[in-house]
Amino acid sequence: MNEEPPRRGRPRSPERRRAVLDAAAELALGSGNLPTVDAIATRAGVSRTTLYKWWPSAAAVLLEGLLDRFHASIEFDDDLPVRTALEAQLDTLVHLLRDTPAGRLLRQLMAASITDAATATALLDQWLEPRRHAAVHHVERGIASGELRAGTDAALVVDALFAPAYHRLVWGHAPLDDDLAARVCALVWPAIAT
Amino acid sequence: MNEEPPRRGRPRSPERRRAVLDAAAELALGSGNLPTVDAIATRAGVSRTTLYKWWPSAAAVLLEGLLDRFHASIEFDDDLPVRTALEAQLDTLVHLLRDTPAGRLLRQLMAASITDAATATALLDQWLEPRRHAAVHHVERGIASGELRAGTDAALVVDALFAPAYHRLVWGHAPLDDDLAARVCALVWPAIAT
Repeated sequence: MNEEPPRRGRPRSPERRRAVLDAAAELALGSGNLPTVDAIATRAGVSRTTLYKWWPSAAAVLLEGLLDRFHASIEFDDDLPVRTALEAQLDTLVHLLRDTPAGRLLRQLMAASITDAATATALLDQWLEPRRHAAVHHVERGIASGELRAGTDAALVVDALFAPAYHRLVWGHAPLDDDLAARVCALVWPAIAT
Repeated sequence: MNEEPPRRGRPRSPERRRAVLDAAAELALGSGNLPTVDAIATRAGVSRTTLYKWWPSAAAVLLEGLLDRFHASIEFDDDLPVRTALEAQLDTLVHLLRDTPAGRLLRQLMAASITDAATATALLDQWLEPRRHAAVHHVERGIASGELRAGTDAALVVDALFAPAYHRLVWGHAPLDDDLAARVCALVWPAIAT
């Protein structure tokens, strides 16, 4: 739906698009709450109609803005050993969920996604899938390089590595410890390392 | 709060309490939606006031009713090898989340818990903690029996085993496969087995 062309004229300038994404991310990270479409439009200096031409919902704008803002959190170099890259991605997620308003925002978006299909889609497309994709990439290059066993189920390994952090965020039964990433990696590695 | 004595008279009969818990579980499992206090009270044949004497919220009644209804899902014998007991508990959870309305109800309760502290408390006390407690028990007896390594972090192992199922329930990015329990156990076991 984000890719749907506007009804009239050419797509707006990249600067306008950037202003909208920045406005959404800044409002959300500043307040810890989900911004409305009106608040995003006002801050970005665009009309509500313009905003709805490009995005289906406030959640979609916000999640694209957060993906953009935190993109470094899923960029780890292919020169790194696979375990180092995956542990760094997990450690960065733990700190993002714990030490920035992203954790609180994510919980609100997850709650909203139960009753709102557009939010559920945006959450998957703009939050989870880019992160899973980055992690699966490292698992797959590990299999290719021989660091990981042939036949390793990349999707399952990625869930096993990242699910405990989300689980602790959602339920709040245990802390997102500083050493959580290292300890979870240590728990999974013997089963997959060559 | 559930333990708080009623303001007047003796605690109500176990039959009345049972009727309320059954009413909550049956309404929820029949409809796939969270029942109101009024609906539970009507079905159980008690007054709204009576119900609020024993439970702080509809969520608390429902979660106690579900714990009761699904108690077999966390009862695995200490005579079983630890891995068998834990894999059976996880497999039962996967089927509970996937094949009964419990998964759908849990997602609604998790959403409600973001804005309602009583629901969050009931979710932890009546859903997650009894399940974690049962699983930690098996990990600890495995350490004691020598099946698992001394120094194994039971809380982390339990999160690593159970988090992927909840993660897939909440995000919906991958299925709760029939062999999920076996595959997750296989991924964690080499790190903890003696």
